[in-house]
Amino acid sequence: MSRKLSADADQLLAELQHLATLSDCAEPPPAVTRVVFSEADLRARAYLKGLYEEAGLAVRVDPIGNTFARWEGAEPAAGVVGSGSHTDAIPHSGMYDGTVGVLGALEAIRTLKRSGYCPRRSIELVMFTSEEPTRFGVGCTGSRAMTGRLTADQLTGLKDESGDNYDEVRQRAGFSGALQDVLLPEGYYHAFIELHIEQGPELEAAGLPIGVVTAIAAPSQLTLCVEGEGGHAGAVLMPVRRDALTAAAEVALAVERLARESVSPDLVATVGQLGVHPGAANSIPSRVTMSLDLRDIDLANRDAVLVRLREVAEAIACRRGVKLQVTVQNADPPSVADAGIVDAAEQACRDLGASHQRMISRAYHDSLFIGQVAPMGMLFIPCRGGVSHRPDEYASPEAMATGVEVLAATLAKLAEEA
Amino acid sequence: MSRKLSADADQLLAELQHLATLSDCAEPPPAVTRVVFSEADLRARAYLKGLYEEAGLAVRVDPIGNTFARWEGAEPAAGVVGSGSHTDAIPHSGMYDGTVGVLGALEAIRTLKRSGYCPRRSIELVMFTSEEPTRFGVGCTGSRAMTGRLTADQLTGLKDESGDNYDEVRQRAGFSGALQDVLLPEGYYHAFIELHIEQGPELEAAGLPIGVVTAIAAPSQLTLCVEGEGGHAGAVLMPVRRDALTAAAEVALAVERLARESVSPDLVATVGQLGVHPGAANSIPSRVTMSLDLRDIDLANRDAVLVRLREVAEAIACRRGVKLQVTVQNADPPSVADAGIVDAAEQACRDLGASHQRMISRAYHDSLFIGQVAPMGMLFIPCRGGVSHRPDEYASPEAMATGVEVLAATLAKLAEEA
Repeated sequence: MSRKLSADADQLLAELQHLATLSDCAEPPPAVTRVVFSEADLRARAYLKGLYEEAGLAVRVDPIGNTFARWEGAEPAAGVVGSGSHTDAIPHSGMYDGTVGVLGALEAIRTLKRSGYCPRRSIELVMFTSEEPTRFGVGCTGSRAMTGRLTADQLTGLKDESGDNYDEVRQRAGFSGALQDVLLPEGYYHAFIELHIEQGPELEAAGLPIGVVTAIAAPSQLTLCVEGEGGHAGAVLMPVRRDALTAAAEVALAVERLARESVSPDLVATVGQLGVHPGAANSIPSRVTMSLDLRDIDLANRDAVLVRLREVAEAIACRRGVKLQVTVQNADPPSVADAGIVDAAEQACRDLGASHQRMISRAYHDSLFIGQVAPMGMLFIPCRGGVSHRPDEYASPEAMATGVEVLAATLAKLAEEA
Repeated sequence: MSRKLSADADQLLAELQHLATLSDCAEPPPAVTRVVFSEADLRARAYLKGLYEEAGLAVRVDPIGNTFARWEGAEPAAGVVGSGSHTDAIPHSGMYDGTVGVLGALEAIRTLKRSGYCPRRSIELVMFTSEEPTRFGVGCTGSRAMTGRLTADQLTGLKDESGDNYDEVRQRAGFSGALQDVLLPEGYYHAFIELHIEQGPELEAAGLPIGVVTAIAAPSQLTLCVEGEGGHAGAVLMPVRRDALTAAAEVALAVERLARESVSPDLVATVGQLGVHPGAANSIPSRVTMSLDLRDIDLANRDAVLVRLREVAEAIACRRGVKLQVTVQNADPPSVADAGIVDAAEQACRDLGASHQRMISRAYHDSLFIGQVAPMGMLFIPCRGGVSHRPDEYASPEAMATGVEVLAATLAKLAEEA
């Protein structure tokens, strides 16, 4: 790239800020809640579609709402170079997670267009449906389905809290067509690269504007259901209780202890959701349902901890006379970035004078799944304090502009490849 | 009472069964949810008012919905003999808690009327508003307000989950008049006696149809709020976490341990509600709010455990670097039954050939508060397995009929007293 690449940080920020107002959240921005197929999600999609079209991109929406915005290349039949991320947001989270990778890819394309560049391969922005697991308990349903990691039947089997299944909900939200058609043809992507905030503290601590991701940690997500015996909080004496909540509390502490004691410092385990039935102040909990999120760079270690955790939880349940049911929602392998994409990204950094480091992604992303069928890479930019999934999540306009420019240069390199 | 007292068990059961259909619950009866001032509560009140009027009782509703149905005695100016209970129900509970004391008192009055009895003192049925703490976090708001344990200002200060205060909610539900007018005049009750299912296993185990209550345990209700630090479940490593949920789990287990180790076997402690913020599978919990219910017959021991518990919880919070806020919703003294009412009830049992035992009430009831301003007693009937606050709560028609007949005979004795 000899042409000058200069991202429009003002426009990108204005678009991010407007997107943040499209929220299911009672709190004002930067707090955002945008659950898949909610009213806010649909309003956000409509807003983004308008922006893609303004940029002269051809928009295609698949049967579950994965949205592709294409800048046709000189060789339209060649595998595309993709970039994108998600715009759904967990409850009470921030305005940069995912959105920087969608609006940033759009700004990268606009930046390339402004520079006069014309791609050989088509460059395609993608907004993945439902990266967050909030509604259906499984994250990345869009990219999983695109890459055959979730079949049409498995998608239909996913239910939200109201008991409505994925197929019903997406249809009610206005997405039609056969679920089978979500699967991408083999070789669809020549290369895929996602821009994302780091969601961790490393780049900020190192004072570096860019992280080039070499691998994404292996995530797993479980649901644990503890069934004890309810009763009146005043009348049932302590020795005869089989309280589902205290049993669940012991399991949650065991999760924390096993993660802390793990041989891998990268292993993290989190109970993020916990629901109590019947949930009355004067009633002994009879049932508790909780989520467990367990990740590691080291797949073998993660799976070993998973096995140990089930043993410990079973022992707790047995000792307390409660029933325990463990459901694995997903247990995915890690994904390794393509060496050629890592090279292209590092070369782009050098071309633009942006210092960088190679790093691991502990959070997982749609790229984890794309990486299982296509050459994949990721670019990280720093976020303040490493904070994410909170309203005070923040990436500076300068950091975003640098990320967009490196992304644009990398896309241009990849799009010229044979 | 030389007249024959014969309760109509069929009618009582039919009325209880109909009342169980008036529920906010998606599950069919016997599962019941009837939260104060909800649509189901209002429908239940309308149904009951019709029954009181059919029985020839004069109905008065106070400004918060406490409902009095009066059978005027020969000396209308004399202190009344009261009986009653509540009809609100915690989520997913059963159809006998409280309702047996309301419809049972009605059937006791009808039984006395059928027997040809005419009372000297007026006999008055009362349905207390909101015995359960579900909506406003404090139980027995009706009897507390009637006895000056909750002032008009304190009532208005109570808020439900939506942030609406008690005063707004009761007015929206159609209850008007000054909150000050809920307070009963001094000496209103000559005597008060409540019929209730035991909500514990003792009577069933002893094979006895009647328990005559001599004291009600001292209840307390606290709210604990733990504030930690949120963040992405993948990106924040274990050593630097300040997870609000694992801190809360440790507190919940400490509550259980302190209760189990208490010198008083009657002390019970329960965390019945626990809410997690933001409540996403892939987000570290930043805030947890939980309820704590702590009771004992022995007030000094309960208060000592309360103090110890706060110390232990503070230590956990300090060690984990999270903030802990403890709010005492209520901490009430126990209530001792009036010796004269206990005598009258025991005499009624003997008159009717119903064997009985004296016992303690571990659950608390509106009688706890009435007992602080007036002579109070309670009658318990067995419930299957001691189960309460669950859909499978059950009292047999025979047990209820015996309870009603003993209640009727006791009311008649008390209503003749000078």
